[in-house]
Amino acid sequence: MSVTDAIHELIPLLQRAHTLGTIADLLGWDEQVNLPPGAAEGRGNQQAILAAVQHAAASEPRIGALLAGLESAAGALPVEQAAVAKQARRDYDHATKLPADFVREKAVQDSRGYHAWARARAASDFAGYAPVLEKNLEFARREAAYLGHASAPYDYMLDKFDPGLTTATVDRLFGELKRELVPLVRAITASPVAARAREVGERLRGYPIEAQRAFLREVTAQLGFDYERGRIDVALHPFCSGAGNDVRMTTRYNVDQPLDALFSSIHETGHGLYEQGIPVAHLGTALGMHAGMAVHESQSRLWENQVARSRGFWRHFEPRWRERFPSQTAGVSSEDLYLAINAVEPTLIRVDADEVTYNLHIVLRFEMEKKLFAGELAVRDLPAAWREASRELVGLEPANDREGVLQDVHWSGGAFGYFPSYCIGNMMAAQLWQRLRALRPNLEEDFARGDFGWLLRWLRENIHVHGRRISGLELIQRATGEALSPQPLVRYLRERYGTLYRA
Amino acid sequence: MSVTDAIHELIPLLQRAHTLGTIADLLGWDEQVNLPPGAAEGRGNQQAILAAVQHAAASEPRIGALLAGLESAAGALPVEQAAVAKQARRDYDHATKLPADFVREKAVQDSRGYHAWARARAASDFAGYAPVLEKNLEFARREAAYLGHASAPYDYMLDKFDPGLTTATVDRLFGELKRELVPLVRAITASPVAARAREVGERLRGYPIEAQRAFLREVTAQLGFDYERGRIDVALHPFCSGAGNDVRMTTRYNVDQPLDALFSSIHETGHGLYEQGIPVAHLGTALGMHAGMAVHESQSRLWENQVARSRGFWRHFEPRWRERFPSQTAGVSSEDLYLAINAVEPTLIRVDADEVTYNLHIVLRFEMEKKLFAGELAVRDLPAAWREASRELVGLEPANDREGVLQDVHWSGGAFGYFPSYCIGNMMAAQLWQRLRALRPNLEEDFARGDFGWLLRWLRENIHVHGRRISGLELIQRATGEALSPQPLVRYLRERYGTLYRA
Repeated sequence: MSVTDAIHELIPLLQRAHTLGTIADLLGWDEQVNLPPGAAEGRGNQQAILAAVQHAAASEPRIGALLAGLESAAGALPVEQAAVAKQARRDYDHATKLPADFVREKAVQDSRGYHAWARARAASDFAGYAPVLEKNLEFARREAAYLGHASAPYDYMLDKFDPGLTTATVDRLFGELKRELVPLVRAITASPVAARAREVGERLRGYPIEAQRAFLREVTAQLGFDYERGRIDVALHPFCSGAGNDVRMTTRYNVDQPLDALFSSIHETGHGLYEQGIPVAHLGTALGMHAGMAVHESQSRLWENQVARSRGFWRHFEPRWRERFPSQTAGVSSEDLYLAINAVEPTLIRVDADEVTYNLHIVLRFEMEKKLFAGELAVRDLPAAWREASRELVGLEPANDREGVLQDVHWSGGAFGYFPSYCIGNMMAAQLWQRLRALRPNLEEDFARGDFGWLLRWLRENIHVHGRRISGLELIQRATGEALSPQPLVRYLRERYGTLYRA
Repeated sequence: MSVTDAIHELIPLLQRAHTLGTIADLLGWDEQVNLPPGAAEGRGNQQAILAAVQHAAASEPRIGALLAGLESAAGALPVEQAAVAKQARRDYDHATKLPADFVREKAVQDSRGYHAWARARAASDFAGYAPVLEKNLEFARREAAYLGHASAPYDYMLDKFDPGLTTATVDRLFGELKRELVPLVRAITASPVAARAREVGERLRGYPIEAQRAFLREVTAQLGFDYERGRIDVALHPFCSGAGNDVRMTTRYNVDQPLDALFSSIHETGHGLYEQGIPVAHLGTALGMHAGMAVHESQSRLWENQVARSRGFWRHFEPRWRERFPSQTAGVSSEDLYLAINAVEPTLIRVDADEVTYNLHIVLRFEMEKKLFAGELAVRDLPAAWREASRELVGLEPANDREGVLQDVHWSGGAFGYFPSYCIGNMMAAQLWQRLRALRPNLEEDFARGDFGWLLRWLRENIHVHGRRISGLELIQRATGEALSPQPLVRYLRERYGTLYRA
């Protein structure tokens, strides 16, 4: 069988498995957005049956046979087909190398872990949760071993979300970032401007939801989100699901926190623009798949932070904002509004953090994960290690484990290695931004005219259309001409916030 | 293998196939309610893959083997298990007896038929559509033959939607109905009250959609629709999908036709109450499945017509209606409102018909279908036959085929035998209503207090919980103590409309 024939037979099999996965995604979206409370059990039943069908499609032995053939001819494969085969191997191994018993036990453990965490968090009782977390770590190590990474399980965890990312790389990047960022945060928060920013933010009250909805719809459409190929709804947590021609974002509204829905929607729009920019014809293969969570996060952060917190952006949108909310904005000066949008305030809670301090929350979690997997930190010693790291990095010490080690859901379901994507994504966004401003020094002038077209086209051509042909790190290197570094992020934060806070 | 063991092995297989079907239903609902326009092709792809998976589950050879075993022990089966086996046989035969080639060709033909019909209707050109319709009839006959009903294909068509219904039964019921109904309609439409009803209806204008939504939500919840186990959204056409704990209704709003959204929602609520009343534990078997389209329609029509067009209902809801729409209802008397709610006006278009004349539209379609299948009417002679029947039954003659034989979509996709359910459902509703009023003469007093609990409980116990244990005709006979007859419908229409229109 020729390589071409094998690829032609392989792709529909991959796309079939992928399509079944998109149905599961839609059921998941519907569960968050529409599901009547009484239907939860039925939805679980639908998902379980569909998951089994999807797993069977992804484990289809013919895929394995075709991949073996392609791999034996690896040198003869054109670069695109090689990328397709490589990703298909990742997915096929993940579908077939984990024994069914293990998958079942892990599903039970993940669910148990979630409930144990929820209880422990409510009671701020880490000791009761520790044995469950130990078990989660053990399952993670076993999974890595089944996939052939027994010797470097944390590398496996990172690679799962970001192909090509290693512990050593993250360690180097985060070490460098930490050295620069900690003093910057100290300087910003010591500034009298910080108190002013907080005070202004608290004055933004009474923004009717219908007007918030209309405004964020206007903004996200103008940024380029194609509402003919996607939508935005309300859910308890903001997220973005789907790809290609059916991208579904969510947000949530609070009358007294109008910037929340707006910025979380712009964040999701960044994800959505990426998914809408992926070549639809290639969905289900490496050519029609995002490059990893860090690149995904770089897109959401770039639009949310570099773009939508810029002065140029607000030169265009501030008059529109005031028009929709005339009485609410009457006593708020332009500078106050800009300050509220760029408020920096250290907090113990990651999800409440601003874009400067957020990175330090991630560095903290990476350091914990790295040590846990290296055996340098025992689960029982986590709370103390967390407290110490929090003091060192964020400058605050949690009074209890609820606002410390128990605050995040991720580990309870076995999602180790996910956190670093957030901060790597910030670095990527800043490095892209630096490149963009070098290419187009007056980019913010575009924004001030309400024109985001040049930016979106550049991201489409340099990021979105490439799918997962190469790793996220390579993709950013090609797009920016340099290997990923934390320096652009430090420089960007210093320029925007150092200036604003006279720090 | 014991009968009990066989049933225990069979049911999960049936429920698996059923659950996959519910996922397809949800995708269908989402397509009507949420789908971004650009995602239509992707949704088609999802549905095609899911349909193949569902078909494989429904054709699972083990189901056939278990059924064969159960059928050989038929006499020994308890009545409930016999009902389960009987329905499973229907479904299994439908999934397995149609050759794959036939199913594929028919899907293509159905789609072609739809587009040919849409074109023909737009151009009011029956001649161009006639060959397609002939082909649809041929496919229907072939399907009946594959299922073993070559000698009585129209009986097969009726039975498909309403197990147990035959051409002879419908013929007898409709013949009797026609004789009584035609003169009643003539008398009503000759009444001067008819013009008054029309005039009042046209004055109902400017009802804000948000207030319509709130009112119909209040009404449908009070009728008993459980919004913890269902929802209502906006779609181009009103419908009700789902079952058990996840029932999804749709409606559509028109500022100048406030009664449309209200009554179509109450109609769908009738369907929804039925689906919410079906025993969830038995979903996927005859014990957890509606008894057929006619019974389904009896529930929607009963709530829409007998209940929600009654004076008792409006004694409760009229003050609430006026409260929500104070300025719009200022010049409308109670009697005028009641008249608008019960307007009767012959029309050429079935979907625009009132509850009196609607039945004659169905009788017309049944007569056409019956003759087509009996070979007594050629497709090319349909338009003339339609015109003649329309004059005789509805008292109006279409000026063109668009408002005649081309008005309905059903036949274009091969859905022959579906129309009679609508009118049989009306008969069933009236017969249930007659029984209900005999059991509880002051039923409308309940409504006047806003209390629909007794009615819903009675329907739950006498209709809903029985699923598909017995045929719809038997179910109505047991619930009312009499074989189905058109007389209760005639009597009900005469009482309500004859009185109102002094006809």
